[in-house]
Parts: sequence; structure tokens; C-alpha cells
Amino acid sequence: MSKTKTAAVVLAAGMGTRMKSALPKVMHPLTGRPMVNHLLSTVEALGVDEAVVVVGPGMEAVGRTVAPHPTVEQADRLGTAHAVMQARGALEGFDGDVLVLYGDTPLITPETLSKMLEARRGPARPAVVVLGFRPDDPGSYGRLMMDGDSLESIVEAKDATAEQLAVSLCNSGVMCVDGARLFDLLDRVGNDNAKGEYYLTDIVALARADGLACAVVEGAEEELLGVNSRAELAVAEAVAQARLRTAAMDNGATLIAPETVFLSHDTVIGRDVVIQPHVTFGPGVTVGDHVEIKGFCHFEQCTIADGATVGPYARLRPGADVGEGAHIGNFVEIKKAVVEPGAKVNHLTYIGDARVGAKANIGAGTITCNYDGFMKYNTDIGAGAFIGSNSALVAPVKIGDGAIVAAGSVVTRDVEPDALAVARGRQEARPGWAGRFRQRMAALKAGKSNDKKGA
Amino acid sequence: MSKTKTAAVVLAAGMGTRMKSALPKVMHPLTGRPMVNHLLSTVEALGVDEAVVVVGPGMEAVGRTVAPHPTVEQADRLGTAHAVMQARGALEGFDGDVLVLYGDTPLITPETLSKMLEARRGPARPAVVVLGFRPDDPGSYGRLMMDGDSLESIVEAKDATAEQLAVSLCNSGVMCVDGARLFDLLDRVGNDNAKGEYYLTDIVALARADGLACAVVEGAEEELLGVNSRAELAVAEAVAQARLRTAAMDNGATLIAPETVFLSHDTVIGRDVVIQPHVTFGPGVTVGDHVEIKGFCHFEQCTIADGATVGPYARLRPGADVGEGAHIGNFVEIKKAVVEPGAKVNHLTYIGDARVGAKANIGAGTITCNYDGFMKYNTDIGAGAFIGSNSALVAPVKIGDGAIVAAGSVVTRDVEPDALAVARGRQEARPGWAGRFRQRMAALKAGKSNDKKGA
Amino acid sequence: MSKTKTAAVVLAAGMGTRMKSALPKVMHPLTGRPMVNHLLSTVEALGVDEAVVVVGPGMEAVGRTVAPHPTVEQADRLGTAHAVMQARGALEGFDGDVLVLYGDTPLITPETLSKMLEARRGPARPAVVVLGFRPDDPGSYGRLMMDGDSLESIVEAKDATAEQLAVSLCNSGVMCVDGARLFDLLDRVGNDNAKGEYYLTDIVALARADGLACAVVEGAEEELLGVNSRAELAVAEAVAQARLRTAAMDNGATLIAPETVFLSHDTVIGRDVVIQPHVTFGPGVTVGDHVEIKGFCHFEQCTIADGATVGPYARLRPGADVGEGAHIGNFVEIKKAVVEPGAKVNHLTYIGDARVGAKANIGAGTITCNYDGFMKYNTDIGAGAFIGSNSALVAPVKIGDGAIVAAGSVVTRDVEPDALAVARGRQEARPGWAGRFRQRMAALKAGKSNDKKGA
Repeated sequence: MSKTKTAAVVLAAGMGTRMKSALPKVMHPLTGRPMVNHLLSTVEALGVDEAVVVVGPGMEAVGRTVAPHPTVEQADRLGTAHAVMQARGALEGFDGDVLVLYGDTPLITPETLSKMLEARRGPARPAVVVLGFRPDDPGSYGRLMMDGDSLESIVEAKDATAEQLAVSLCNSGVMCVDGARLFDLLDRVGNDNAKGEYYLTDIVALARADGLACAVVEGAEEELLGVNSRAELAVAEAVAQARLRTAAMDNGATLIAPETVFLSHDTVIGRDVVIQPHVTFGPGVTVGDHVEIKGFCHFEQCTIADGATVGPYARLRPGADVGEGAHIGNFVEIKKAVVEPGAKVNHLTYIGDARVGAKANIGAGTITCNYDGFMKYNTDIGAGAFIGSNSALVAPVKIGDGAIVAAGSVVTRDVEPDALAVARGRQEARPGWAGRFRQRMAALKAGKSNDKKGA
Repeated sequence: MSKTKTAAVVLAAGMGTRMKSALPKVMHPLTGRPMVNHLLSTVEALGVDEAVVVVGPGMEAVGRTVAPHPTVEQADRLGTAHAVMQARGALEGFDGDVLVLYGDTPLITPETLSKMLEARRGPARPAVVVLGFRPDDPGSYGRLMMDGDSLESIVEAKDATAEQLAVSLCNSGVMCVDGARLFDLLDRVGNDNAKGEYYLTDIVALARADGLACAVVEGAEEELLGVNSRAELAVAEAVAQARLRTAAMDNGATLIAPETVFLSHDTVIGRDVVIQPHVTFGPGVTVGDHVEIKGFCHFEQCTIADGATVGPYARLRPGADVGEGAHIGNFVEIKKAVVEPGAKVNHLTYIGDARVGAKANIGAGTITCNYDGFMKYNTDIGAGAFIGSNSALVAPVKIGDGAIVAAGSVVTRDVEPDALAVARGRQEARPGWAGRFRQRMAALKAGKSNDKKGA
Repeated sequence: MSKTKTAAVVLAAGMGTRMKSALPKVMHPLTGRPMVNHLLSTVEALGVDEAVVVVGPGMEAVGRTVAPHPTVEQADRLGTAHAVMQARGALEGFDGDVLVLYGDTPLITPETLSKMLEARRGPARPAVVVLGFRPDDPGSYGRLMMDGDSLESIVEAKDATAEQLAVSLCNSGVMCVDGARLFDLLDRVGNDNAKGEYYLTDIVALARADGLACAVVEGAEEELLGVNSRAELAVAEAVAQARLRTAAMDNGATLIAPETVFLSHDTVIGRDVVIQPHVTFGPGVTVGDHVEIKGFCHFEQCTIADGATVGPYARLRPGADVGEGAHIGNFVEIKKAVVEPGAKVNHLTYIGDARVGAKANIGAGTITCNYDGFMKYNTDIGAGAFIGSNSALVAPVKIGDGAIVAAGSVVTRDVEPDALAVARGRQEARPGWAGRFRQRMAALKAGKSNDKKGA
């Protein structure tokens, strides 16, 4: 028996005026990627064969972000059935299962979608499987009228009797439909209603009239949260974050205060990692095992190898690659640089476009001067080198293995291995100068104050 | 028909011993200003004509913070009716509506107070409108006994029958009273009770005995939260913060994790602003449109213009003025300084008492040395100037347009436009020195260790 | 009447496989110390005379952390009764009250344990006092079958009738047992059950069969939270943090956003201290009165005296001792150093192994160079000294009282009191150089870009 093919149609044409944004609604990010990609990643995890995104006019940006998945344009916004209809060309001849999803309802899980696909294979062979849920406040949701396991009809709240309103099982809008029948059903959906729109919901009644079975799978209210405003986006982010944190903890990381740690959809965290409160992971971060991450760190597109210690207040920017057992300390920024195993960059330092050799020690206040206003240059620090505090390394420059740079130096030329480089002024003393300065300033201040009184 | 005048009497005489503080209770801040000012701002928003604050002895600080609103002193603490009575002189001849409010109940909304004023104008012309609420736990609150829309009496919990205790509508103490009758009613309040105090609540019974109508308006429990301890202050702050965050999001800002962003009562945030987790806004901050604020920023009394990028770990102190499209990066402190459009101050820098010209680039580790221990001096950096990393600019000093300061320089004299300034030591090399040093130190350590063994 | 002696047996043999950790479960920290120490501290607060910890094989680390309390090893994991039995030797001849506690249930309070001890002294003289609780979801917990105040039996959920399952009072496992009878009862516990284990629970039935009374004390569900996974550890941490925050606020500290402030079990905070959002206290921190702590601070093993102002972004490491009225500002790291009264270390500074004299002023970007790759050295800064910005103080070095170090200096030799030290390069100007550089670079870029087109 060959596996039935599956396709997903993702409705993403809404602009989301309540977002008050120049960005199309589904482009607003969730755990570091656009909502629509969040949803596409869910259907990819499920192994769908095709996914088509229905966008509105002028939403080329959505097309770029969902590529290589194709988009189709819904020129006029005439309802959900009309939106799905736009995918007809893209799904020409497709007769597997079609999932209909919403780009602004991104929290739905692969588990729930799997149950819907399974339900399609049930003994009654339902043509339409609707995802139902039981909201805390059913309010204006359509109610699902069941006869045993069979979905008989969907009644809109405004048309419902008191008895029907008492039904707690509601319509989420998410469906799984027999692809061989989907467009025939859609063809027959009318728009004889207050808004003159074509509603996807109507295919249930049409299927039942054809004598086809319909069924319901239940999902959690949480995964059906729709995002129509930035406040709802924040709620969705919180739900998604909670899932990521739980997964990280289940996997063997300690998050002392998980509610203060923000992860991205692709964050990878090893075992026996301890993360202190107040840490944020942007996209593209991988953390090895036995890593200690102290508070107030900010990471994006970087890797931290086993046994490293990072933070507090460490900022690892794209291309930061922290080696095994390395130490990155406070007020340190690292960008596009390899910090090799066992190296220490502990205080008030900027390392950019550089290599820090194994076991090298970078003193407090060290700056790699990687930019001249036009171009970026590399700094190469050898293994076991010791860079004295408050030094500036003017790139391009190479500090040899085992070399020492004296504190406060401005290094502009390469330093040989095992050499000492000193590049700073000589110390001069002016005895008593400070005492005289203080007297002068005090007199000046006293004078000023007298002037004021005199004024 | 002329608008009825309104006055507010704010009771603020309590010291709040449970706060364990030298500060009078109503001076403890909420969203960055004293609680009593929070409340006064609410009545100002409502457009009250007069507001009188009743303070306790020795609370001159409250008088200063509420100015120009007058204060009257309640020398002895003889109850709420007695406290309101102190405002008699201040409200001499006033016959509009008098709102009685509590300085330690600062979350009440203008909307609720409006409803109370409206209720005063209802057909029954109630002399007293009481703000009722339905707490989760009615406990020891006085119960409001209604006959239809008419408030018949307030029964203290300790005097209530079981039936009366079952009433869920409780007395908040907040009232709106006919100013023409208020002081006459207060005159007749007695103190024949366990504590020997004069209770404002009693004016309801007195009004009813006079045949005057009384009415109730309902408010939410949340807005009636009283602050008697620092734990309750924290709860009130959380409620106020939630309101501010929701308003910011409704207005078109994305707060990825709103629960980690702390705003002030007067924070202004534009549209399509994205704020990463962990950011705090002190008073006096204005943010333009399309601004990106990365995590761990700390702002107070500063402005950020359209299109700027700020953080992470940026501290903008009073007088920081970040121009359009400017970039302020990590571990950067800016105080009393203008950063003109397109300028970049990206890493580990202190800019104080300065101007950074348009499109200037300030290298990592740059410090404006603005203080000599006695006076502050200005630094003026021209448009398009490039300040090399780890430089110190000793103010007063002027860097001309387009000038370059070499990395690691200490600049003490003005730099001409388009000139290069270099002010650092020359680099010297001592070949092999580091290798010998390491041998010496290793020998020393070995010797020490031998010594220990020998001991 | 002499006080009855009390002992505690803490079961801590579980590895906690769901923790996915190399660390034994009870070693995972809660508010900065291992869970087992958290629990031991609770019984110490109660004044127990002996505490024995039952560990599993290979858990020497637990032994070290609980010392001087003794451990006994449970070689085979044959159930809770078997675990307690291992303490027989350690409690030889002890006939006081024995509390049986669980190392992974660390939130139990001294108040609750006191109630259990008191219950043992009740009129019925119960041989066993069980700690009961009423969980939100009783699920699979054993039910406590009461006859009035007498505990008749404990029925496991799987063996319970529907009526028994309806009982909401559940068994927590925590017990207080007559030490004179404990081991006799344990001797008689059998293992005729599905898992072949010896269950402590069974001593209730045995005691009742002997005609001995058993009783129940009720605790809150919150304090009986068991930690079996890192997610549960995070929940326990949240509960413990909430307790610490409430205590700090009750004691007179303002936590503007308590949910973002993380304390340790031993944090001491004075009165009229204000703590802004996002601050973490590691173990060993003491804060005086009237201290202002701004956001994003990270403290461990340090002291902050009365009237000091610290942060934002201040990191105080072990041995940092901030004096009265001192100021520690942003991006400042202090380690093993005394900052004397009134001194200011306000910006981008590293002070390690040092003394900063009273009223000294440390300029922005100052670094104490305390390490040469082999040894640490001291820096001594005198009272009233002024260290110019961006200076490096190369230890060992002494800056005299009232001395001034010029900005940008690298100080390698002692500076006399009241002297000025200057140690930097001289400023040279190259007029027009920057203009020419820009032209050259622009030409280069244009050339490159042409090259690309040509490619």
C-alpha cells in the first residue's frame, strides 16, 4: 500500500491592519522566523509533498521567504473558500489529502495534523476532517454538530439556537480534505450571505449533502491561537517559547529561570548545560555539553563548544565560534572570530574578524581594530599568546604563538612568536602637580561662587 | 447648560508602616513617578477643576511633589471622614461634584471615574455615588445593600448577617459626592465605634436618612488594588506595566517578550518598533518609528529618532539624543550628547557631554574624557569623522569634519578637518623576551612548589 | 520536662535519570545551593539533633556537600522502607522523633515540620504522623483514609475503590515516626508487591495493627513539589524565589519587578533598598540600607554598604566590597577589591585585586592589569586620587593619595601622593591625510567594483 500523498494550502493573504505595520501579517516573526515559515516548518516536519501559500497582492516578500514553496495570489479577498480556490492550478491533478492552514495560526503542532491525516483513513473514510477545539469562551465560534463520530454540520454562532450555542466543540477552520473532491466542493460554495463571501466552512454541508462522511479531530485551544494584533503575537511567542524551553530542559539543560530565557526555533543546547537568568538566543546558535552560560548573554549565529564558560554580559555575534573549554567573560563582544580551545577573553573586549589561538589570554579592554572606515581586516593571535590589558591590535596584524603584548600597547606591526611587543608612551612624573591643580580649581570654583553672589 | 465642576480630594495622610520605609507611602513610585502623582494624573486626564491632597504631619515632600495642587494637613488621624473634612477650607463654596480618592489606590482609571460623574447626573440625582467592586474574596469588605439601582446602606462585614455577607458587591471607599452637601453630611458623622474614628462610609446612611438617593458604579477589582506593602506595590506596578505594554503594542510596536520590558508612565514608542526581551525605560524616553531596540538596554530621559538601531546593552542616560538611522551598539553609555543622523557608536564606548557629527564612526573602546574631577567639558566630533578604537578624547576638544584619529590615541588638542591625528607610543620589539619570561616564571613556580614540599 | 530529641533521615539515593545529568539529582542547585542542602538547612532551622542522608552508590559528592551530616549508602534500591532502614546504624539507640524526608522534595517548610512534631505530642500519642496534602489533581497519589483525626490506612490509587479515590487528602510520603518503634516497624515491612520493593507507607498499617495511633498533618501542595526533571527543578526554583522575594519586600526593599530579580538562599538586603528590574544575586551577597541597585546587575559573594549606588550593568564578583556611598556604574567589573566610601567607579572599568581609596574617582575605561599570565598582583589607589580615563594601571603599583593619572596613561611605576603621572604618546597632526586616504580608498573600491563587473 503506497502512502497517500499530502498537500498543504496555507492562507496568508491578510494584511493584518490591527498589527499597524508595513509588514504583511504572516511576516512578523515568531521565535526568530516569520510566522508563515513557522507553519511551513510544521508541515515539512509532517512530510507533506506540496505546500502552496496563498498571498495577497503586493506580498512579494512573502513569496521570497517561503521559497521554494510556491505562492499563488488571491487578488480579491472574497473569503476562505475563494482563497483555497486560488491553489487549484498549483494542485492540478493532486488527489491526496489537502490540509488547509492559516498563516496567522502558527502554533498548530505536527501531532495534531497527523491525527487529522489519520482520521481521513478511518473506517468512515471522511471526505472532510475538521479540526475542532473547546475554547474557554466559545463566543462567536461556529459550533460543530456531531452525531456520534460523524460531523453533521457547522452552525455559525449568530444562526445558532440556545441549545446549539451550548455545544462546546468549536470550528477552528483548519481542515483536511480529500483532494479528489476539494475543488468540486469549492466550486459549489455560494456567497449568499451578509458579507457576500465564499466560506470554506460550507464544504461540510455540501459534502454531507453528497452523502460523504465528515469527521472531527480535537486540538488544544493553545495551538489554535490566531494572531491579529501585536498583543496576540506576544502571546503566541510566549506559547512557542514555553515549548522550546521545555524541550531544552527535557534534553538535559538547566534553565534556572526559564521564563527569562528566550530561544529561537533552531537553538541547539547540549546536556548538563546551565543557563542563568536573562539570556537570549537569536537564530543559528549551537551550544555543546557541559557549558555554563551566565546571565545577560545575547547570542546569534554562533557556536559554543563543550565545556566553555560564557558570560555574564557576553555578546556573541554572527560567526563567533567559541572553542572547547574557552572562557568568554563580561562585556565582551565577539564577531566573526574563532576563539580556540582553552583561550580566555574575559573582560571588556571586542574581538572581530579574528582568530584567538588555543590557550591565548586576552587582557581586559583589548580591542581588535578591524575597520578603517572602508574595509575590514583580520587579526591573528597565536596559541598561548598573552595580550596585555587595554591594548589595541590594529588589523591586519599577526601576533605570533607565545608572544606577549605589553599592557596599553597599540600594535600596528606583526609580533614574532615568543617576542614581547611594547607600544606605549613612557611614564613621566610631575611631583606636586595634582595638589596645585586642586588648589587652583578650588579657587576658581570659590571665585565663581562669589561672582554669583555678587550678581 | 454649563458643565458641572468637579473636584478631587485625595487622601494621602497614611505613613504606611508596613512599607518599612522612611518615605511616605504615597511617595513610593509607580511606573516612574510617585503613586500620588499617578492618581493626580488620572484626575487631570478627567479634567477636574480642583484637586486637594490631604497629607499627614511632616509630609512636606508630598506637598512639593503634588504642586501646584494644594495640600491640607490632617494633624490627627481620626478616620476617613475626618480626613476629607480637612479639605473644607480648600473647597469653600465649591458646589460641583467631589471625588474622594485614596493615594494608595492609584490604579483607578479615568473611565471608571467618568462613569461615577455620569451616575451623579442620572435621573435619581444621587447625592452620593459609591464605587463598588466584586472581589474574588469579599472577606472583610463592607457590603453594598442595593434596592434595584438604589444604594440603601453599607454594612460592615463584622456587623453583617450571613445573608448580607453573601452579597458580592463591596465598598471600595471611592466616592463621588454632591459638593453642596458633602461637608454638611460630614459634620454629622459620629465616632461612636470601636476605634473612635469618623468614617466616610457613614455619609451614605446620613444621605439616605435625609431622603437623598445614593447609587453605585462598579469598577474592576484590579483598579482598586490598595498598596500597603512593598509586595502590593510590586503587584500594582505589574498591573500598570501591563497597561503600558498593551498600549505600546496596540500602537504598533512589537514587544517580543512584553513581560520583560519595563516602561514609564510617559514613554512614547512609535510604529514598527521592535523591542527585544529585557529592556527598561525610565521616565522621559521618546522612540521614533522603525527603531530596533535590542535586548538589555537601559534608557532614561533620552530620544531615539526614526530608523535608529540601539543595543544590545546600550545605556542612554539623560540628554542622550540619538539621530535618525544612527547606530548605538553594545556596552555603550551615552549621556548629554547628540549623536547625529547616521553616526555609529557601536562598541564599549562612553560618550558624555558631546556631539557626534552625522555619519561619524566612533571606534570600539573610545572614551570622551569629559571630567577633570572638578568641571565637565565638551567634545565636538565633526561629521564623517573616524575615531580609531581605544582612543581617549580629552575634553574640551574638537575633532574636525572628516578627520581621522588613529587607534589608541590620546587626543588633547583639536584636530583639523580632514587631518589625521596620531597620539600614541611607537612599537618596539624584544625578540624572545616572552619565551624567557615564561621560563623564568615557570622556574619560580617550580621553586615555590619545591619550597612547599621542603616545608 | 526535657525536650524530645529529633532526627531527620533524608532519602537522597535516586540518580534522577529524567534529569539527564551526570550530577546526582539532589546535587542540582536550588537558590544557589544543592537541593539536599536546602532541605538540611530547613531541618537545621528546626533544630534537629541528628540528620542522616541516605545516598546511592558512587555519590561521594553528596557526602561532601552534606558534611558534617553523615551519609549512609543504600547499595540496592529496594524501596523507601529499605532506604530508611540503612539509617539504623546511624540512629542506634535513638528514641526521639524521626522525620523522614526526601532530597528531591526540598520546598517543605520548617513550619510544616514543626506541626508534625507537635502532632506527635498530641493526646493520642500517634506513633506515625504522615504529612498529607490536597493536590489539584490527586491522580495516582495514595489516599489517606481518616476516622476523625485518626489515620486508619493509606490506600494506593490503583487499589482504591471509586469512593476511596474521591478522597482528596493524599499521602506525601513525608513522615514523623516514633524513633523507638521505627526500625521494629520497618523490620516487618514486606515486599510482596508488583515491584518487589519495601514501601515506607506500609508502616502505617503495621502500626495500626499493633494498636498504635497514626495521625495526619496537612501541608500545602506547593511545598511538596517533587523534582524529577529539570522542568520541575525550574518550578521549584520559582517557588523558592517567590519566597525569597516576598521576604525581601516584607523587610523593606522595593523590587520594582520582583519576577525579574533572582536571589540566593543567603542574600541579605537592607531597608529602603530599591532594586530595578533584571538583577541576579548569586550566593554570599549582603546589601546595606538605602542602596540603589539599577538594572542588569550580577552579584556574587560581595558586599554593598549603606547608601551606595550600583549599576546598571555592574558585575560584582567574589571579594568585591563596595563602601558606604560609593558609586559603581555601568559595564564595571569588580573582583577581590575594596572600593572605599564615596569612591566612584562609573564606567567601563575592570578593578581586580585592588583597593580604591575613599573618594577616589576612576575614569571610564580604566583597567587594573592584575595578571601577567602567571601571577596576580595588587593595585593600590589612594584616597582622593583621580585616574584619568582609558588608563591602564600595571600591578603591582601604588597610586598615592590625591595623585592624578592623566587620561590614556599606562602606569607601570608608583605615583607619589599629589603628583601627576603622564604615560602616553605625544599627539602629532598630519594635515589633509584623512582626505587623501578617503580618496584613495574610494578609488580602490571603485576599481574593485569595476573588476567585479569585468569578471
